[in-house]
Amino acid sequence: MFVTFLTDFGLDDDFVGTCHGVIKRIAPETQIIDLTHGIRPGRILQGALVLANTLPYMPAGVHLAVVDPGVGSSRRPLALRDAEGRFYVGPDNGLLLPAAERFGGVADAHELANPAYALERVSRTFHGRDLFSPAAAHLSLGVPLGELGPPIDPDELVRLDVPEPEVGESSIRASVLAVDRFGNAALNLTRDQLEEAGIVPGARVEVAVNDRQYFAVAARTFGDARVGDLILYEDSYRNVAVAVSRGSAAELLGIEEGSDLLINVG
Amino acid sequence: MFVTFLTDFGLDDDFVGTCHGVIKRIAPETQIIDLTHGIRPGRILQGALVLANTLPYMPAGVHLAVVDPGVGSSRRPLALRDAEGRFYVGPDNGLLLPAAERFGGVADAHELANPAYALERVSRTFHGRDLFSPAAAHLSLGVPLGELGPPIDPDELVRLDVPEPEVGESSIRASVLAVDRFGNAALNLTRDQLEEAGIVPGARVEVAVNDRQYFAVAARTFGDARVGDLILYEDSYRNVAVAVSRGSAAELLGIEEGSDLLINVG
Amino acid sequence: MFVTFLTDFGLDDDFVGTCHGVIKRIAPETQIIDLTHGIRPGRILQGALVLANTLPYMPAGVHLAVVDPGVGSSRRPLALRDAEGRFYVGPDNGLLLPAAERFGGVADAHELANPAYALERVSRTFHGRDLFSPAAAHLSLGVPLGELGPPIDPDELVRLDVPEPEVGESSIRASVLAVDRFGNAALNLTRDQLEEAGIVPGARVEVAVNDRQYFAVAARTFGDARVGDLILYEDSYRNVAVAVSRGSAAELLGIEEGSDLLINVG
Repeated sequence: MFVTFLTDFGLDDDFVGTCHGVIKRIAPETQIIDLTHGIRPGRILQGALVLANTLPYMPAGVHLAVVDPGVGSSRRPLALRDAEGRFYVGPDNGLLLPAAERFGGVADAHELANPAYALERVSRTFHGRDLFSPAAAHLSLGVPLGELGPPIDPDELVRLDVPEPEVGESSIRASVLAVDRFGNAALNLTRDQLEEAGIVPGARVEVAVNDRQYFAVAARTFGDARVGDLILYEDSYRNVAVAVSRGSAAELLGIEEGSDLLINVG
Repeated sequence: MFVTFLTDFGLDDDFVGTCHGVIKRIAPETQIIDLTHGIRPGRILQGALVLANTLPYMPAGVHLAVVDPGVGSSRRPLALRDAEGRFYVGPDNGLLLPAAERFGGVADAHELANPAYALERVSRTFHGRDLFSPAAAHLSLGVPLGELGPPIDPDELVRLDVPEPEVGESSIRASVLAVDRFGNAALNLTRDQLEEAGIVPGARVEVAVNDRQYFAVAARTFGDARVGDLILYEDSYRNVAVAVSRGSAAELLGIEEGSDLLINVG
Repeated sequence: MFVTFLTDFGLDDDFVGTCHGVIKRIAPETQIIDLTHGIRPGRILQGALVLANTLPYMPAGVHLAVVDPGVGSSRRPLALRDAEGRFYVGPDNGLLLPAAERFGGVADAHELANPAYALERVSRTFHGRDLFSPAAAHLSLGVPLGELGPPIDPDELVRLDVPEPEVGESSIRASVLAVDRFGNAALNLTRDQLEEAGIVPGARVEVAVNDRQYFAVAARTFGDARVGDLILYEDSYRNVAVAVSRGSAAELLGIEEGSDLLINVG
């Protein structure tokens, strides 16, 4: 059985390793796949989108995710099952839902409330270690979901607002969802929306950001552009992204997660 | 069998991966748990405290730890067994002892001196790969501790000075043990010592650092404070820590590992 | 069976975790060893040298490596077998060859062209996930190399230029191959070449870089130098390196990968 593991813990501290230890003490044969621990601290939306994008590539199992700026407050700790039988463990702050919705939506939701499936002493600040990791480990061993705590109506779970682009006839206002190590910036935009605004591969467009204008070309891949060109392309998770061939679009444009861009047909 | 692994190697280089390879060549079925590799380069005290704090969450096994600024000098390479039967492998510079003392203290200590349990060629600068990883791998396979080299009197092992706080009637001088990714700073201070100075949850205190004063509140968790408030709380390893609710105490106060703080009852 | 895994993906994004998921869906029992994911983005030479240096410490198996600035262009995706039976998967840009040459050279080369051993949809920008990880997973299960695609003449594989030092009678011009976390800088230089120029342990030399001169001493290990001394030594992969005892040579000298140094007998 697999537990996949996504957090904003980073790898400089012991948080991730400690959770691995907790899981392995309970379920020594369970395999853990570290999806990423590089979600920016407290950015629930980024965590939710990465989880939803990557889960189709993961073996089915228990999907543990912790981006939890509200730890220690009244937000509920959750275990969910989706329509296809995958399990999710994490806080009730919207983090888990976009992923579960890719697999038919939440079929069952339970609050983690049974102390038999938590560590003996639950701290107020590290539920990843004390509550979520033990629950994920026990689920991976086959403990029934209903054992973990009382059911919750799935309609009452906290949901995130995912920002929508404004798509006009010859212009689009979009925002940056994530910037990766290579400086490529994924937008809240699909290829269909791009084409709706009349932008097809080969088209030249103008990208306006931070009161400056740049020329870009709609391309199918880096290979279609010259080194240094700014391109718009469909990335590997099927988001439209901006990139610089062998360079960093984030640096060139001065953009980060949350930045707004205006794309005009050139 | 498990090998837990803590170092100051970071993850940008191949050091950690190379040690994994060495362990797996010797003991393919041994599971490795990366506790953390983010100890600051050469900070033995930080490594020792993280190891001691996190080991209670790890499965028993072999605990490999390498923070070793004296590699290549005359410091001895060690394998230890604690009173509960856990094994430790690492340099004789104090790194392993605070952890072993949490499990009843060192029962047996041996110097790594048997070339049968090291790589064929031992470099002068990478004992993690050439000496410590092979020893940990062989111990995980059940090689008796005494096979690794001659015994050492546990009283002769190098010990660290752990800085002690000065606790007065209405003021405390403490120092920062570690700063985590979220900017929370753990102090060399327990809740009992805080209460000794008359500081209980809800109390307002003054924190003086770098010639500046800040107001803080003693809280039980982040949830008890308003966003932006500076709080003193017991962290998940039962150290008193300073934090800013949804912010970074380290940035606000300009502190890092080793910084001194003066806490006055307000 | 083992898959070792080296990339320039970093660990801040989900790239590495997603590839783990892809491998585990195909080959749940295959063990993955993360060699490093800290190769600088697009630095093929650095990736090739790290792979060649570290492979002797890895269990034999499938060696998956992705540093692939040409993804989406016409560069070919490869699977190789060396003379000792190890497998390699990655792009045809020179990355894999220095490692294979340590094990007798490339015996068989095939282009990855059989869609049965790739994901159903292959993106233009993430062949690590869609093409290379599935191929490595299938090889780890025993799929014959020839199944993956048509053979290529090993002599037609793309090769890297590895920079050579200029070794004179009393001076050497060398360049920095890599800088590690500790600020130690490995040069394209062996101890034999150092001795050819008359530099033996204990010798004092002058190192000129960026129009400044520094005194350094040829040492056998850090332990032979005083704290703060600049030293030349043979590192654990048998490259000559410059280091500062308990400090950072990279910071002191202002050098990085690719920097040139002139070493003169003092």
